[in-house]
Amino acid sequence: MTQPTPDPTLIDKLVLANRILYDQGVVDGFGHVSARHDKSPGHFLLARNMAPALVRRGDIVTFDLDGTALDAAGRRVYLERFIHGEIYRARPDVQAVVHSHSPSVIPFGVTQQPLRPVFHMSGFLGEGAALFEIRAVAGDTDMLVSNGRLGVALAAALGSRSTVLMRGHGSTVVATSLEQAVYRAIYAEVNAKLQLQAMTLGEVTYLNENEATKAAAINDTQLARVWELWQQAVGPIE
Amino acid sequence: MTQPTPDPTLIDKLVLANRILYDQGVVDGFGHVSARHDKSPGHFLLARNMAPALVRRGDIVTFDLDGTALDAAGRRVYLERFIHGEIYRARPDVQAVVHSHSPSVIPFGVTQQPLRPVFHMSGFLGEGAALFEIRAVAGDTDMLVSNGRLGVALAAALGSRSTVLMRGHGSTVVATSLEQAVYRAIYAEVNAKLQLQAMTLGEVTYLNENEATKAAAINDTQLARVWELWQQAVGPIE
Amino acid sequence: MTQPTPDPTLIDKLVLANRILYDQGVVDGFGHVSARHDKSPGHFLLARNMAPALVRRGDIVTFDLDGTALDAAGRRVYLERFIHGEIYRARPDVQAVVHSHSPSVIPFGVTQQPLRPVFHMSGFLGEGAALFEIRAVAGDTDMLVSNGRLGVALAAALGSRSTVLMRGHGSTVVATSLEQAVYRAIYAEVNAKLQLQAMTLGEVTYLNENEATKAAAINDTQLARVWELWQQAVGPIE
Amino acid sequence: MTQPTPDPTLIDKLVLANRILYDQGVVDGFGHVSARHDKSPGHFLLARNMAPALVRRGDIVTFDLDGTALDAAGRRVYLERFIHGEIYRARPDVQAVVHSHSPSVIPFGVTQQPLRPVFHMSGFLGEGAALFEIRAVAGDTDMLVSNGRLGVALAAALGSRSTVLMRGHGSTVVATSLEQAVYRAIYAEVNAKLQLQAMTLGEVTYLNENEATKAAAINDTQLARVWELWQQAVGPIE
Repeated sequence: MTQPTPDPTLIDKLVLANRILYDQGVVDGFGHVSARHDKSPGHFLLARNMAPALVRRGDIVTFDLDGTALDAAGRRVYLERFIHGEIYRARPDVQAVVHSHSPSVIPFGVTQQPLRPVFHMSGFLGEGAALFEIRAVAGDTDMLVSNGRLGVALAAALGSRSTVLMRGHGSTVVATSLEQAVYRAIYAEVNAKLQLQAMTLGEVTYLNENEATKAAAINDTQLARVWELWQQAVGPIE
Repeated sequence: MTQPTPDPTLIDKLVLANRILYDQGVVDGFGHVSARHDKSPGHFLLARNMAPALVRRGDIVTFDLDGTALDAAGRRVYLERFIHGEIYRARPDVQAVVHSHSPSVIPFGVTQQPLRPVFHMSGFLGEGAALFEIRAVAGDTDMLVSNGRLGVALAAALGSRSTVLMRGHGSTVVATSLEQAVYRAIYAEVNAKLQLQAMTLGEVTYLNENEATKAAAINDTQLARVWELWQQAVGPIE
Repeated sequence: MTQPTPDPTLIDKLVLANRILYDQGVVDGFGHVSARHDKSPGHFLLARNMAPALVRRGDIVTFDLDGTALDAAGRRVYLERFIHGEIYRARPDVQAVVHSHSPSVIPFGVTQQPLRPVFHMSGFLGEGAALFEIRAVAGDTDMLVSNGRLGVALAAALGSRSTVLMRGHGSTVVATSLEQAVYRAIYAEVNAKLQLQAMTLGEVTYLNENEATKAAAINDTQLARVWELWQQAVGPIE
Repeated sequence: MTQPTPDPTLIDKLVLANRILYDQGVVDGFGHVSARHDKSPGHFLLARNMAPALVRRGDIVTFDLDGTALDAAGRRVYLERFIHGEIYRARPDVQAVVHSHSPSVIPFGVTQQPLRPVFHMSGFLGEGAALFEIRAVAGDTDMLVSNGRLGVALAAALGSRSTVLMRGHGSTVVATSLEQAVYRAIYAEVNAKLQLQAMTLGEVTYLNENEATKAAAINDTQLARVWELWQQAVGPIE
């Protein structure tokens, strides 16, 4: 079975997304971002096993939703590609996924403190971040979502939300475009930092559900503005 | 009606102000800074809708106080230009306005903790920062000051102060010059960070009103010193 | 007695380790990293007394386990080389040692708060960090492990663990390779920062021992990925 | 009365000290560092009124202990030169003075929390930082030490210590050389950050007086190592 070639501008955006997430402090040497294949909804695009900051066009591999690489050509792939495959399977609306160890978000996953929208930029958190406790699903593990069964469980925990905290590990955000996924990953981190600080001052007034929904909608009309900035900051890609 | 051309050095300063605010961590891809038109007090200058760090001379647009662009030529404008217009209308003394999501300031806006001057550099906070609760004015919104009515309410909340916290959103500072506005935006952020930390140590002794007033006055004589540094850090403009 | 020449690639890795630890914020002008001699287990390699960020190939000196330099040629050596020698003597499994004042780790050493694994990246902390109280061993000192007797006491406190906190001083991590030692030093710092923040939110769920052991094992298969990134960030060496 | 020319290497060191303090985050656009004149103990060297990061050789001015400039040639001088003059007068052992708004130190000055040595690098804080409350000396002021009388009061508060906290303003450190003054200013900031974090974890074990004294003595033998690093980081001077 031959596989249609993805749109080159999608590959470019995915390479940029990798570098932007590093430049903005969401990923370090670990973490990954994927996009659903634009011509085949049963496939997704993800870099080979490498540091996101170093990804180039030629490093993008196509996977099916089971996490099987079609064109890895012997190159190592990410142990946790099942995060992406099973979310794309469970959520037809999702076009892009970011998995990271974004630092300020992690404390929320290990303390049962809900991550909530402190300001309008994180309206996408209005429904609350979901929590995935891998121990409840699979007992004592190495914490990685390294097979389909764990991917299914993670996607179930995520449900219809934008963000799922993974206890003792990190978090995953989903979106309807790469630009929106990168935006959400960056502002989940910003929001977590703000919430950590605000909580030291006393009772916090979060956005309510209406405010969050409305803020999320208006922010989505402003994505091109920040993408232009983030893209300039990482420079040209190869 | 033809519009007088603003002083080119004012345009240059406004471009620099945009870049300095990004370089100093007050704005990210969002936030904006304006100056009152030097030849027409009923107009103000503000970049088109874009990331402040990327603003160039040609991106500066002239608006009237209702927030109507005179020379946008089809380019998108900021949704929240009404912040600027209504403040210039209500406050004839104000010559420059910075609106930002300056991170350390936000926790104060969502917790009713007053932002107060921890040290002499933030004497301009002596009278205390005002608080704008958009929910009290307009119910559940997208949090943005995106029309004249909300701009009027924000200006009313600001009153005669230098700084207004916007709950679940950010803050706005006003000043009698662009240099002073940039200074105040930067040191509101610095002060907020200091106050967050000092409060973890115990009871804080703030500047009293006399001290704050005197400190603010003497600091205003030193603005050229920091502007020179900030300007060198962002380099030449185009 | 002539000394076999170490593998040049080990020297290169040791120079890189010095620069990476500075670039990643684990060491500042102080701190040091060593490797056991690849051809003589009774010797180790360590830079002369200098800032880690400036180390070049020619600055690497060979020491015996008593901390005596074989080829210093009059150059000053680190006062605390005994940390390295006595750990290599007590722990035949150890091939690399990092001593640092890594900032987020220090608060744990001075408050008896155990440093514990918040997330899978720090599974190597599963058995807990050891604590070395120099005052209990030698009374009031200058805090430095500046002779063999103190080195022996530090190695005894470390025991079979990967990490020892040194009260009022810093910490030391050990590993089976330079890559692993650098990884552990970096993620001990990352983990400490996460733990400091998580503890402000409430009760923390740490990795349990099984999770920590399994996570540490799987992470060790991913070291090449981050080493490539860290190496690119510091550039070529001389 | 003609004035002997200071040693050019002292001028160079003073220019470097200015830039290093900016590069290391101790000063921003404000703050200043001086050295006692090497050939005339009744004079000291200090930049003209400008941002420390931009200081060049030609910007260094000679002052007498009353704060009168000998060779300002009409250039503006710092309002707070009296900090330096009165400390040099009161403390014949002092050869260099740094005044800054070093951020982590400020919370200690406004909360009566003593700044104490968390680790060996800050052994110079062993005797404790002094506290200067300008309100007790002069009532409500602009907070600046802008005349000789206030300088005398500050020097009296400092006493024989290395560091004085200035409530609502900043801090001043003194030393027997520029290298030591820069070291102390940097590690007062590092120590304050560590202490702020350690205090959130519980009871802190500080260095005791013996430990602090011994640590300070041994650290003074390692100044060349960090100065080399700091100097390389700021590059050549003009």
